[in-house]
Amino acid sequence: MHDPLLTHIRRYVALDADESALVVSLFEHRYLPKKTLLLAQGDLARHEAFVVSGCLKAFFTDQDDKEFIIRFATENWWIGDLDSFHNHRPATYAIEALEDSHLLLYTKAAEEILLTRIPRLETFFRILYRSGLIALQRRMMDAISQTADDRYADFVHRYPNLEQRIPQYLVASYLGITPQFLSQIRRKFASR
Amino acid sequence: MHDPLLTHIRRYVALDADESALVVSLFEHRYLPKKTLLLAQGDLARHEAFVVSGCLKAFFTDQDDKEFIIRFATENWWIGDLDSFHNHRPATYAIEALEDSHLLLYTKAAEEILLTRIPRLETFFRILYRSGLIALQRRMMDAISQTADDRYADFVHRYPNLEQRIPQYLVASYLGITPQFLSQIRRKFASR
Repeated sequence: MHDPLLTHIRRYVALDADESALVVSLFEHRYLPKKTLLLAQGDLARHEAFVVSGCLKAFFTDQDDKEFIIRFATENWWIGDLDSFHNHRPATYAIEALEDSHLLLYTKAAEEILLTRIPRLETFFRILYRSGLIALQRRMMDAISQTADDRYADFVHRYPNLEQRIPQYLVASYLGITPQFLSQIRRKFASR
Repeated sequence: MHDPLLTHIRRYVALDADESALVVSLFEHRYLPKKTLLLAQGDLARHEAFVVSGCLKAFFTDQDDKEFIIRFATENWWIGDLDSFHNHRPATYAIEALEDSHLLLYTKAAEEILLTRIPRLETFFRILYRSGLIALQRRMMDAISQTADDRYADFVHRYPNLEQRIPQYLVASYLGITPQFLSQIRRKFASR
């Protein structure tokens, strides 16, 4: 179950056998059936999650119960609410499984042990957060400047095959458009 | 000139006298007069910058020459194009001084020396990027769900007094609204 996580970390930093064993011991497996929550909006995030298999959405709802999709996470992605997890604030969004999912979770206590015993993981997390910052900045620039057509093309590129795995209305919500408008864009792309 | 930087780093990690001297030696001072570029869109970013004094904007223009403001940076903020700096890609946006500014710049080579000689800086950058990620995520959530009034209130909170320092049309561009609409919002807030 932990192999994809070890492979993922080793893309950035080396891990010897003892260190790998420590990582395995500190990441707890959780099976999250489809439509169950990993985190509820307003709760305190006690875990950050690595996705071994399945698919999740991070989303929030406003006062009028309108749902906004922040992002999706599939195999080999991380998901959580960093602000809530690190700064002990109520989570500003929720995380829910869109498919039966297998996750590996770590707690704050586990993170402290990991960083103390394997200081090289400081580098891993530094690079991980930097990549997240770069990706999010690009998404924000796209959101404010691109047409819906361009954003749809980026979504397909960013999340290959995800479109076939989740309901259309979620893709539309992520793109900030109506499902009807998304259908039009898809037809246009299919006929190219 | 380097004191604000040392104070800023010491908010996160300790630095002894030798380490402080190394930081000072590796961050190069640059005076950037108002309306000059630190980075042009399409160029390779050779520096990341810490703002000692002054104010800068990060922005990009689309094919129709429409300008989009990504963010501002004032005293004690960092600014640069992380993707270009770390991944050797052409910068996707430009950075320009809005006031005469004093900056402290580091290069990739300087960063390598810093991280090798002061491994604790891994922790500093890990926390810095994590905070950036949290702030950017919040801005993105606000951008997709909030009214212009709420975004204006957040801008005033996020950048205290900046409104008095820069032209109105830049604030409007940052908020994604017209200068006329911004004037209406300001009048509404002033009369409260």
